[in-house]
Amino acid sequence: MEVWVQKYGGTSVANAERIKDVANRIVKTAKTGKKLVVVVSAPAGMTDSLIGKAKEVSHAPNGRELDMILATGEQLSISLLALAIQELGEKAIALTASQARIQTESVHTKARIKSIPTDKLLKELESGKIVIIAGFQGVTDENEITTLGRGGSDITATALGCALNAGEVEIYTDVDGVYTADPRVVPQAKKIPRISYEEMLEMAGSGAKVLHSRCVELAAKYRLPIHLRSSFGNTIGTYIQEGETIMEQAVVRGIAHSKSEAKITVTGLPRSPSAFADLFTEIAAQNINVDIVVQDFGEQATMSISYLVAREDYDAAYEITTQFTQKYEGARITGEKDMGKVSVIGIGMRSHPGVAARVFRTLSNEGVSIEMVSCSEIKITCVIHEKEIEKAARSLHTEFCARGEIAL
Amino acid sequence: MEVWVQKYGGTSVANAERIKDVANRIVKTAKTGKKLVVVVSAPAGMTDSLIGKAKEVSHAPNGRELDMILATGEQLSISLLALAIQELGEKAIALTASQARIQTESVHTKARIKSIPTDKLLKELESGKIVIIAGFQGVTDENEITTLGRGGSDITATALGCALNAGEVEIYTDVDGVYTADPRVVPQAKKIPRISYEEMLEMAGSGAKVLHSRCVELAAKYRLPIHLRSSFGNTIGTYIQEGETIMEQAVVRGIAHSKSEAKITVTGLPRSPSAFADLFTEIAAQNINVDIVVQDFGEQATMSISYLVAREDYDAAYEITTQFTQKYEGARITGEKDMGKVSVIGIGMRSHPGVAARVFRTLSNEGVSIEMVSCSEIKITCVIHEKEIEKAARSLHTEFCARGEIAL
Repeated sequence: MEVWVQKYGGTSVANAERIKDVANRIVKTAKTGKKLVVVVSAPAGMTDSLIGKAKEVSHAPNGRELDMILATGEQLSISLLALAIQELGEKAIALTASQARIQTESVHTKARIKSIPTDKLLKELESGKIVIIAGFQGVTDENEITTLGRGGSDITATALGCALNAGEVEIYTDVDGVYTADPRVVPQAKKIPRISYEEMLEMAGSGAKVLHSRCVELAAKYRLPIHLRSSFGNTIGTYIQEGETIMEQAVVRGIAHSKSEAKITVTGLPRSPSAFADLFTEIAAQNINVDIVVQDFGEQATMSISYLVAREDYDAAYEITTQFTQKYEGARITGEKDMGKVSVIGIGMRSHPGVAARVFRTLSNEGVSIEMVSCSEIKITCVIHEKEIEKAARSLHTEFCARGEIAL
Repeated sequence: MEVWVQKYGGTSVANAERIKDVANRIVKTAKTGKKLVVVVSAPAGMTDSLIGKAKEVSHAPNGRELDMILATGEQLSISLLALAIQELGEKAIALTASQARIQTESVHTKARIKSIPTDKLLKELESGKIVIIAGFQGVTDENEITTLGRGGSDITATALGCALNAGEVEIYTDVDGVYTADPRVVPQAKKIPRISYEEMLEMAGSGAKVLHSRCVELAAKYRLPIHLRSSFGNTIGTYIQEGETIMEQAVVRGIAHSKSEAKITVTGLPRSPSAFADLFTEIAAQNINVDIVVQDFGEQATMSISYLVAREDYDAAYEITTQFTQKYEGARITGEKDMGKVSVIGIGMRSHPGVAARVFRTLSNEGVSIEMVSCSEIKITCVIHEKEIEKAARSLHTEFCARGEIAL
């Protein structure tokens, strides 16, 4: 029995007309003989509206009750979609995360999926039903309702794809695939037909918001192909799959960027590895993600550290770092809030040295000053001022992608 | 540990301001030391709006998915109420029917509660939490979501009161108690301070819509006092309790009426008890409730039967009865759709004969013609034409209630 997983986002179930359209699309696929598991988000706008209701009665809503409120969104959309499919004469069953046993940790608002027992799902599929499952939500061993955080429905779909050993997970969204750069910034950007898990991970981590990193990690682990495509029309989107199965080997797969970064630098620190560890332990304890860290050993007995955080975490990180700095005589803190980063990503870099040099030269030719650099085997990230991000993305796209540079 | 159960209807949780008001009221009660279980309905209007959404995608929504959709209403209101209580600094926990284990039969849209294990509820109460439970909904052994039908939240509250051996169930509603007659029809009607379960059952069965019969039956079985009161202000409402504990013994407790009845009569039937049974078996199979049955043996070898049904069931009942009549030569069917009934109810009737005679004389003096009569030990019901119902209710109220007729 081959299982196919489809995921539809909130815009696809925003109103009765859209729900009927999706029902038609699903029934058409089911009629080809595929066993279908469909994951659905809450109707577009509903999550924000529910958060608004919670904030009307509470200045800082408790995660447990907030999750219960948010979970009503998908409970509504799955039931409506099941009704719409039944109306077309097909058998369908809606399952909440509790009913589908999407088991998570006991953490509210950003739980991680622990396991999905498949016996009930397989039983429903074998009885000829299309199974409609609430995305974004989970249930703990104590029957508490949890939610998975940003990108949660994509994670549900991917986890189900892995658990059910699905042929493919189709993620229907409001973009029609992964692009060589953000098309709003780089008009020449082209849709990427196939991208490896590693490249997609680097794209997602570098600012491309089409798919959450956790989905890509999960899919990579189970070698599950993901097809990211538009819910409007029937055009093929982007396949995220194993690198070896991609014939066309580009040196650079795409350019990703992010504008909302901030940089904090501490100079005049003693050369002590433990000081270093202390600082980042404290920052992590506040749930702040540190992105790029550059350590510089100066000429004297001191060292300096620079690190990048999301701009929304800047104030908290600056506060922690200031307290840390006060322990060391002569240490000094500086910060810059208006930073961004631009990344060049491609599995082909492994076999094509010299990409970094071309990146630096391209930016230098544009007069862009590079503040920090971070490289992995398949990615080069440059931290630059936010106001130069778009120019940098366009010039790097012209250099690497616009000419269709293919490495065979 | 004395547990107190409160139930708030949809108007009490219709918006943030109302929710905060209810939270304040609950916290005030909790501060008196009572252990509180609070049952909440869906926000006013939400159930209708959700049914509307279901009907937009399905001409006849499946009960299973419809129940899942409806259950989101209480899931929202309990979570918001718990947040509002937490905002006031008290501990509170919201529980869906699935989490509270309100176990029902596997029937959708009108399930009956089978059992409520109380260990989890008692544990939460003992830990100092106010427990907020979703009314109207239940869960089956297979983790399917069910709903209890009309009056469902009152039933949840009463069942919880019984299971937890509560001191009292307070049902907050938009009327401030049970009246000696419908105040919209009989302006002289007065609030009844105390009414016995039996009287309340007869009132409910006779058209008084304040509380569902299933609640009263359940409360009577467990001798659980119910206090029916208004959610606006703090006035005492009506206590529904054991008859023996009510000091003030009225001959007549109140007048109830219902306007939407219909009568069907079959004449010329053979005198066969089995024919009689066949007809009502068939009617019951169609889920039609037969209210009053009057059988009349004429002078010859035939008999006639008249029965009352809710007007909405008239067409179906007439059809079944017509088919039945065709089996018997000479049998003839007639029907009247514009009937109503007026009832005089009081436990005091048991010890005060002659009430029936006074009922008939009062109606006769008003020129009201009585079509059928049904008497129990504590109730006299007269079936009359709908257009005479209000006049009949007023005159019976004047005869029995307006003078405050008390039997000591």
